[in-house]
Amino acid sequence: MAGKVFFSVTMSLDGFIAPEERKDDPDAQQRWMAQWTELQQWAFPQRFFRENLKLGEGGEEGRDNDIARETFERTGASVMGKRMFDLGEQAWPEEAPFHTPVFVVTHEKRDPWERPGGTTFHFVNDGIEPALDRAREAAGDRDVRIAGGGATILEYVNAGLVDEFTITLSPVLMGSGIRLFEGVDADRVALEQVRADRTQRVTHLTCTVHER
Amino acid sequence: MAGKVFFSVTMSLDGFIAPEERKDDPDAQQRWMAQWTELQQWAFPQRFFRENLKLGEGGEEGRDNDIARETFERTGASVMGKRMFDLGEQAWPEEAPFHTPVFVVTHEKRDPWERPGGTTFHFVNDGIEPALDRAREAAGDRDVRIAGGGATILEYVNAGLVDEFTITLSPVLMGSGIRLFEGVDADRVALEQVRADRTQRVTHLTCTVHER
Repeated sequence: MAGKVFFSVTMSLDGFIAPEERKDDPDAQQRWMAQWTELQQWAFPQRFFRENLKLGEGGEEGRDNDIARETFERTGASVMGKRMFDLGEQAWPEEAPFHTPVFVVTHEKRDPWERPGGTTFHFVNDGIEPALDRAREAAGDRDVRIAGGGATILEYVNAGLVDEFTITLSPVLMGSGIRLFEGVDADRVALEQVRADRTQRVTHLTCTVHER
Repeated sequence: MAGKVFFSVTMSLDGFIAPEERKDDPDAQQRWMAQWTELQQWAFPQRFFRENLKLGEGGEEGRDNDIARETFERTGASVMGKRMFDLGEQAWPEEAPFHTPVFVVTHEKRDPWERPGGTTFHFVNDGIEPALDRAREAAGDRDVRIAGGGATILEYVNAGLVDEFTITLSPVLMGSGIRLFEGVDADRVALEQVRADRTQRVTHLTCTVHER
């Protein structure tokens, strides 16, 4: 049986999944990091998160941790956009945190980039559908995660290629940043709410995606 | 003991609390109504909603209905902006659905407007704080609801005058419309999640508001 195609992101209550990038201004970078840290504050203390990024022993083991681990374990392959890859290439530890094949949608021609720990980045030059096809094949009966960023997720949503998603709603107002659903094809995309897990810090909301 | 100041709105998953207004185009009006109906689809079948707007007997009686009724019952007075009042003046039935004093923030000078069923609209010309003071006094130990619209709610939030809110997250993507938190003073406003009630149709998310 083929797996599902899903995404899973943390979103502020005003709809942002990341602060705005301002590369030229060092103050803005500090602000970026402060906002990012606040948005993601639920994730950092989790045992799974700490393990997977090799930040050390210990950590919380509750529903948030279970959800983070389940999201990882269901994922047989990921797809990401070039922007997310470029940011991650700077930020991930040498053992990139995917531990599966990752298909990067890009115009750049580049040989597969194998990292210790099982992550291999493949660079796909012919668009979002071929990248997804290759990810499905690599994932086998596990699911394919559209890892990000926002623009790439939205392309897949608007193309009708996403089966479901989980939004971790963080009780934060950011005021500005990158909106998850900016430009969504609202005439085409219908949702059905299937789950909401409220934890101490956040609410994980799961919807399936349907064509109207 | 003085009551709390709160708001309670239905929001799409992409952050809109109403469709965009386009008064000049009849097609756009139909679209407005279709989007509004979809956003609010959880409310219409509820017994309390039908009772309160005199739409007839019957209706659902589950958690959604309890929440709608509790929101009504806790409210000793409401505050609203002039835009919401102008829209409502056309749309509410003769027995306006508040059944309490309502303070309208407006430049218009006008005598109190008493409706059958206990709703009296008072027109307050000296800004949001005096309107809230009068509403608090009228509400006694019940709560004051900032009824809307979005811009008025945001003024109260940014002024640090809101204690808590409930957002009913409707699993809908609207793509455009009036955003609840557009222009929020994110450097000033911090939230704490206190409750999430997932029902069959929506998730009711309650946060308290704090100053950073």
